[in-house]
Amino acid sequence: MDTTSYTVTPIGFVESPLTDPAAAPKQAFEGAPTAWIRFDPTVADGLADTQVGDQIVVVTWLDRARRDVLRVHPRDDLTAAQRGVFSTRSADRPNPIGLHVVEVTGVDGARLQVDNLEAVDGTPVLDVKPQLPPPA
Amino acid sequence: MDTTSYTVTPIGFVESPLTDPAAAPKQAFEGAPTAWIRFDPTVADGLADTQVGDQIVVVTWLDRARRDVLRVHPRDDLTAAQRGVFSTRSADRPNPIGLHVVEVTGVDGARLQVDNLEAVDGTPVLDVKPQLPPPA
Repeated sequence: MDTTSYTVTPIGFVESPLTDPAAAPKQAFEGAPTAWIRFDPTVADGLADTQVGDQIVVVTWLDRARRDVLRVHPRDDLTAAQRGVFSTRSADRPNPIGLHVVEVTGVDGARLQVDNLEAVDGTPVLDVKPQLPPPA
Repeated sequence: MDTTSYTVTPIGFVESPLTDPAAAPKQAFEGAPTAWIRFDPTVADGLADTQVGDQIVVVTWLDRARRDVLRVHPRDDLTAAQRGVFSTRSADRPNPIGLHVVEVTGVDGARLQVDNLEAVDGTPVLDVKPQLPPPA
């Protein structure tokens, strides 16, 4: 199999009151705080049409995750049977990419305010897209 | 700003009858074909609990995209006003990560069959996750 790798470069970083990964909620609906995403000035033009009220997917790089893990205990519950990581949303996985569906609640230059972002302060952001449509 | 970059390594590749990016549907609901994802044997354990009927998000690396683009004509319509890439699903963007919501229609060892995957043959796959919950 082709083993070419690719390089991702953060376009911005999360600014959040969440600083402890262990205390962060596992899922946004469990009560994640309002946060900001500060974008690199070099990509600010890409935000031109992003507006308050937009439902977006924030793609993050979970830089504290383990990449050598293929089976995990769901929700860190050691009494639960291990599952294959691709059937879970564990941060630990070969390419630790996080997906976060949030609403834009503020725009301030090259910063976006979003609700319910379950990512800790300083998390690198790789991309922002419109919310995914449901399956066909 | 911290300019650390990260390396992503494909966990698998798309096998699809779609071979021409220009002919590929822009969105899955426009009629994308059934495709297979062939995973690297080294990550097969991570698929242990993925089953037919699962709604998943396939995270791809759009290796033919341009990374120096911040504004695009939506849907390649040159008569339409350009938009910031982060408000579009254009493949061209600083980190060309694709998100595809599909249903698992078959499991064959380290291969998954999925419906409606709008990615061309050979597209690198970076991750597979359960479908995103709706916004809180």
